[in-house]
Amino acid sequence: MDNKGEIQNQIIQAVETVRRTNPLAGSITNTVTMNFVANAQLAVGGSAAMVYLPDEGEFLAKVGGAAYINMGTLLPIYEETLPHTAKVLYETGKPWVLDPVAIGIGALRTQLLQQFKAYKPSVVRGNASEIIALAGLWGLDGGTEVSNVRGVDSRDSVNAAKAGAVALAKWTGGAVAVSGETDLITDGDLIVFSQGGSHFMEKITGFGCSLGGVTAVYATVASPFIAALTAAGVYNLAGKRAANKVDAPGSFQVRFLDELYKATAEDIANNPLEIEAV
Amino acid sequence: MDNKGEIQNQIIQAVETVRRTNPLAGSITNTVTMNFVANAQLAVGGSAAMVYLPDEGEFLAKVGGAAYINMGTLLPIYEETLPHTAKVLYETGKPWVLDPVAIGIGALRTQLLQQFKAYKPSVVRGNASEIIALAGLWGLDGGTEVSNVRGVDSRDSVNAAKAGAVALAKWTGGAVAVSGETDLITDGDLIVFSQGGSHFMEKITGFGCSLGGVTAVYATVASPFIAALTAAGVYNLAGKRAANKVDAPGSFQVRFLDELYKATAEDIANNPLEIEAV
Amino acid sequence: MDNKGEIQNQIIQAVETVRRTNPLAGSITNTVTMNFVANAQLAVGGSAAMVYLPDEGEFLAKVGGAAYINMGTLLPIYEETLPHTAKVLYETGKPWVLDPVAIGIGALRTQLLQQFKAYKPSVVRGNASEIIALAGLWGLDGGTEVSNVRGVDSRDSVNAAKAGAVALAKWTGGAVAVSGETDLITDGDLIVFSQGGSHFMEKITGFGCSLGGVTAVYATVASPFIAALTAAGVYNLAGKRAANKVDAPGSFQVRFLDELYKATAEDIANNPLEIEAV
Repeated sequence: MDNKGEIQNQIIQAVETVRRTNPLAGSITNTVTMNFVANAQLAVGGSAAMVYLPDEGEFLAKVGGAAYINMGTLLPIYEETLPHTAKVLYETGKPWVLDPVAIGIGALRTQLLQQFKAYKPSVVRGNASEIIALAGLWGLDGGTEVSNVRGVDSRDSVNAAKAGAVALAKWTGGAVAVSGETDLITDGDLIVFSQGGSHFMEKITGFGCSLGGVTAVYATVASPFIAALTAAGVYNLAGKRAANKVDAPGSFQVRFLDELYKATAEDIANNPLEIEAV
Repeated sequence: MDNKGEIQNQIIQAVETVRRTNPLAGSITNTVTMNFVANAQLAVGGSAAMVYLPDEGEFLAKVGGAAYINMGTLLPIYEETLPHTAKVLYETGKPWVLDPVAIGIGALRTQLLQQFKAYKPSVVRGNASEIIALAGLWGLDGGTEVSNVRGVDSRDSVNAAKAGAVALAKWTGGAVAVSGETDLITDGDLIVFSQGGSHFMEKITGFGCSLGGVTAVYATVASPFIAALTAAGVYNLAGKRAANKVDAPGSFQVRFLDELYKATAEDIANNPLEIEAV
Repeated sequence: MDNKGEIQNQIIQAVETVRRTNPLAGSITNTVTMNFVANAQLAVGGSAAMVYLPDEGEFLAKVGGAAYINMGTLLPIYEETLPHTAKVLYETGKPWVLDPVAIGIGALRTQLLQQFKAYKPSVVRGNASEIIALAGLWGLDGGTEVSNVRGVDSRDSVNAAKAGAVALAKWTGGAVAVSGETDLITDGDLIVFSQGGSHFMEKITGFGCSLGGVTAVYATVASPFIAALTAAGVYNLAGKRAANKVDAPGSFQVRFLDELYKATAEDIANNPLEIEAV
């Protein structure tokens, strides 16, 4: 997989297979951005469904091709729903994407994230501070004891999270995606930097969350690493294109969804990326 | 009511009365699309309010002219809130719209939908698979034992739901609306096909949900059948008009809300519809 | 503070300090409009985070510069979360904004609003009927026993709420903002009328909620009174500008977020306002 052309071919295949088969990736995700998550999943050709209850999480885990768990806006019932759903996903071998947003806030979030270590999420997606904090919580290399997360914002650079990202990917056997000005995606062996996007992505809530949901859509048809790369590629491409056409964040979000929908498989595969070995 | 002109006159009256009186139709609805539901209700001239708790559901049932219950994203408290609210609606003779979205997923949803049979929703709105599944759950003609719903998507055609829709309408004494490429609306005696809309409605979440909320707005001033026809008419008209002006789903949703707001009563009444006897 | 120029200078400073420092104002707010709240907070330069659980509310109270509590769509856990968070805010001297939306609906909302009297919100923001009802609930001048709220809509004029607003501000020692065609903001000594906005603000849900969230952002860097004036100023300015460029509510909301982002500190300070002594 160290061949750029081979990676690009697999990205093309992931994009086209999703558009052709409309795969379902169910989510348990935060209420602030769940509408955006669903619309982004639909825009790339997937299908979306969100639930809160334990048996409904299990249902989605079984019927969908992959699933997305986002830790924002925890509700009391999540104490049951999240570990149960993650366990079903793990035991049935279904790929799932974890967004450890707001790691460090509150006792329940910490408890749940600790439980998830055993259920090995196929893709972990977060900003640099979140990735470092999760590696720390799981006792892996590159993590720190003290979280440097402020609410939902990152205070660390993407490169600072490299060691933690690699350690997490080695633990799960999947992939880790660190969102930043340049995104870093690794499967533990290779590190890919995906470029593009726009500063407006910081001015609208939910770009990280919806990127996680879109990653789950691609994970229904591709490996965790290719799914993460494809999602990063279409986000960076659509973000760059949308930013070229607008001058403010409200219009940017609308145009971004449009560009997600319009992006061709070839354009996504050709979005700039750099590959290096770990 | 088998006269097309008479139906059109009643649609005009419903649209204009709502715009003049700004009636409230409260909702207990899913968190993915509730913002869209509220904005669509406001765009057609109604007023919106959403709640979760049992006594708040009762309050909205009593103070509003109609109500909307959507089964997506169930929360634990809904075990109390939904039957209590539906009972108050039924006993006070208030029209209410049921959207049995995701029927077949989870034990609570099934239990609640079984309870609703006795509280006779004035309008049931769903896609073909949901309508067939609800008829089956309630032991009516045209239903099937096995749900063919995948998450929130339909796998059946609108015409396949005709018998179930008619049976549901006969049971409730109200109307049933089946959403699809062409919508089917029946009061158990007549069947109306309403045309228009856009393929972009599949690419943004919440068109079905918000159609249900708008139906509840019209049900505050019109019969269930006319309310369902008026809502289908304005949705098909606004969808067609919006699709003519954009080329992607993000822009489509924005423009759709604009067209909901701009549509005149005459244009809504003149949106193509075909009538046949059951 | 009775000098208009001095008020305008403080508004300029609030706007610029927020843009430079990106302060966090956490929220416990309703699920219908929370996405809009977050995006409005980001558009003016703040940072947003939303939670439901008691210890997470406490965390946000401590880590943020101010907080926002909105009473819409109460969940059962709010019985613990809201008083606990408000108590922490009060005891740590953190400014907080209360939106008593839907006051009068349900037993829990009434109970919580009664508890909040002791925790003295720095800014109370509501429509006229809500402000009058809250003054009444707290046994202050200008309030009435019987709420005239219908769901989330106001049936009273802004001027009718003047006495209640002044009494509330005197009780809290902070400010009160009454939203209407012209907004009324008072600190108990001065009354400022802020003009602008658009009738489209009634046609999209969440302008009141997001105004509260933006007020909390400014309260991280300014007094409650200046925070409320700054928020009203940018909302009235952006609303007027957006309305000049569109003809329908869907486009209006998109453009409004754009104008929030683009408004300069000077333009916000120069938005029309009239000052009178109580």
